[in-house]
Amino acid sequence: MKSRAAVAWEANKPLTIETIDVEGPKAGEVLVEVMATGICHTDAYTLSGLDSEGKFPAILGHEGAGIVREVGAGVTSVKPGDHVIPLYTPECRNCKSCLSQRTNLCTAIRATQGQGVMPDGTSRFSCEPVSRSRDTVFHYMGCSTFSNFTVLPEIAVAKVREDAPFDKICYIGCGVTTGIGAVVNTAKVWPGANVAVFGLGGIGLNVIQGARMVGADKIIGIDLNNDKRAMAEKFGMTHFVNPNEVGLDKVVQAIVDLTGGGADFSFDATGNVNVMRQALECCHRGWGESIVIGVAEAGREIATRPFQLVTGRVWKGTAFGGARGRTDVPKIVDWYMEGKINIDDLITHTMPLDQINHGFDLMHEGKSIRSVVVY
Amino acid sequence: MKSRAAVAWEANKPLTIETIDVEGPKAGEVLVEVMATGICHTDAYTLSGLDSEGKFPAILGHEGAGIVREVGAGVTSVKPGDHVIPLYTPECRNCKSCLSQRTNLCTAIRATQGQGVMPDGTSRFSCEPVSRSRDTVFHYMGCSTFSNFTVLPEIAVAKVREDAPFDKICYIGCGVTTGIGAVVNTAKVWPGANVAVFGLGGIGLNVIQGARMVGADKIIGIDLNNDKRAMAEKFGMTHFVNPNEVGLDKVVQAIVDLTGGGADFSFDATGNVNVMRQALECCHRGWGESIVIGVAEAGREIATRPFQLVTGRVWKGTAFGGARGRTDVPKIVDWYMEGKINIDDLITHTMPLDQINHGFDLMHEGKSIRSVVVY
Repeated sequence: MKSRAAVAWEANKPLTIETIDVEGPKAGEVLVEVMATGICHTDAYTLSGLDSEGKFPAILGHEGAGIVREVGAGVTSVKPGDHVIPLYTPECRNCKSCLSQRTNLCTAIRATQGQGVMPDGTSRFSCEPVSRSRDTVFHYMGCSTFSNFTVLPEIAVAKVREDAPFDKICYIGCGVTTGIGAVVNTAKVWPGANVAVFGLGGIGLNVIQGARMVGADKIIGIDLNNDKRAMAEKFGMTHFVNPNEVGLDKVVQAIVDLTGGGADFSFDATGNVNVMRQALECCHRGWGESIVIGVAEAGREIATRPFQLVTGRVWKGTAFGGARGRTDVPKIVDWYMEGKINIDDLITHTMPLDQINHGFDLMHEGKSIRSVVVY
Repeated sequence: MKSRAAVAWEANKPLTIETIDVEGPKAGEVLVEVMATGICHTDAYTLSGLDSEGKFPAILGHEGAGIVREVGAGVTSVKPGDHVIPLYTPECRNCKSCLSQRTNLCTAIRATQGQGVMPDGTSRFSCEPVSRSRDTVFHYMGCSTFSNFTVLPEIAVAKVREDAPFDKICYIGCGVTTGIGAVVNTAKVWPGANVAVFGLGGIGLNVIQGARMVGADKIIGIDLNNDKRAMAEKFGMTHFVNPNEVGLDKVVQAIVDLTGGGADFSFDATGNVNVMRQALECCHRGWGESIVIGVAEAGREIATRPFQLVTGRVWKGTAFGGARGRTDVPKIVDWYMEGKINIDDLITHTMPLDQINHGFDLMHEGKSIRSVVVY
């Protein structure tokens, strides 16, 4: 079939809107009509060419919501008409990782997903070449939500309720779940805990509202930009620290002072390895846990004195908020529909597919929290 | 009263055996006749002068066992005649740390203990100066077990059964509890887990037997010295890796291969920051936890790529094996008496107090696992 899609032909070039060919779902696969998709920093990172796993040409996008239109042989968990959110972290429920019950990092299709192809080793996308040497277009993060129609393995879609608006819940496909899941699944923040959140972008705001949802006490936001303060307070931030104002070398002490000893939990949502260190070291002696969410530049390393760990601090990380996609994503959709979390205010821009490059521009310019493309 | 003691008059000099004066216990304190004491690397570290908290003159020693001989006003939990193990990590059960139920790092007397004095700010030890400028001798780690009689806060002694031999259970005052506690309390190693232990000294051997006790599957020991292999196997090691033989840069892969994906838990018992990194990175993606036990040289830092954490590895540390002294130490004494753990084979040398410097020599020369002074 034909589908409109934004194709990334090569690194560091704008996407171009094409009419591509999408092959139907094979056994164990589903065809999804994407109704809306967010534009995420990770898409931009891959488009920049810095992502060593990035392959071109590809259809980027991994934060979508849509409707199942066709299922391949053997598919039993979803049927045409079901509303779904594509999962870049699938949940097969049968691999060593899923069965461990200790991680959400399902490994069932990791190898092929990283290569931009479906589990059988081939792509479902092709595009008439215009003076280009080949016409196969790769999948991206197993999702490729920048195509109106995409194909995913059955284990990589979460079935969600049908009354939830696509143009909002698409954000649950990545950012919302990453931030809230880091609080709920990875850190398991308890009621009354003091929480420090470094970086008040979209992820940081979702961490903040996750902390509020589970009953955290002090929720301290740290950001270089005072303009972030009002929105963060709206999402539950109780205290704000601007490192430029307290002094870069006094951020840790400021948080220790605010919390009477240190944060019970801290989260890095910046991707800056120096900030990750501050996030660890502002944790409470004896039990404070720091969770790395941000993705650092290639080659950068985190460091600290081991004394920080020996005296009880714990350094962790999280991917997709520790969420098991098929199990947990529908719950987060429920939380949104029940008003427990706010997504609407995070989606600052909505646009049609042919303005997708503008969405990237808004992100790079810091003018959006989240831009959503509506098909 | 008078007591024989090995006094550290200054850094980097042998201890000298003196007859010191010991003041009786004040309110909340107990006088303990030390019956036996181990000689630990931490004593040597402080004696070397590298320990920034080290104060001289002092009576070192923190790994003892003895008998309560006198109690001060208000002491209710022990009485004269009780057998006890001194605790350099006390357990007050009333401070923020104890009440958190999330750490063993009681803070009730931390400040004064670090200054070498009792909670009232004074020392109970003095020694006739021999052409020295002052006669106050400092406490050390709140224990000072290199004196035949010592004074401790009530909250810093663990009452233990009376049929346990002092010359063995003294080792539970530090090394045994640190190694076994790291497994049981900090890591909470589960039955069937694969465990990697870096460094096969006394702490490493205790980690190994702790892992065996809780039913670990593969227990991999890593050491540069093949001579450590036989003893480690006796304590439960199932596989041995010598980094010099597999190649320093292939240690992580060797452990990943042996475990089919990585260790569920790893422990650093070397104090080497490069080894700590290997210990983290040999852990299983998704859930592997690495526990830093070893104390690094001042100023050294640990480092890794944050990707290691984002993909599910956890970096932790432990002090005194995460054990709450008064609660957990008596249990470990029981485990020894019930034959669940082996201490006898770890105590390779026993000597009277006047040969204590020989005990330090044996440790520095790598000829002992643990030397014990018997009064």
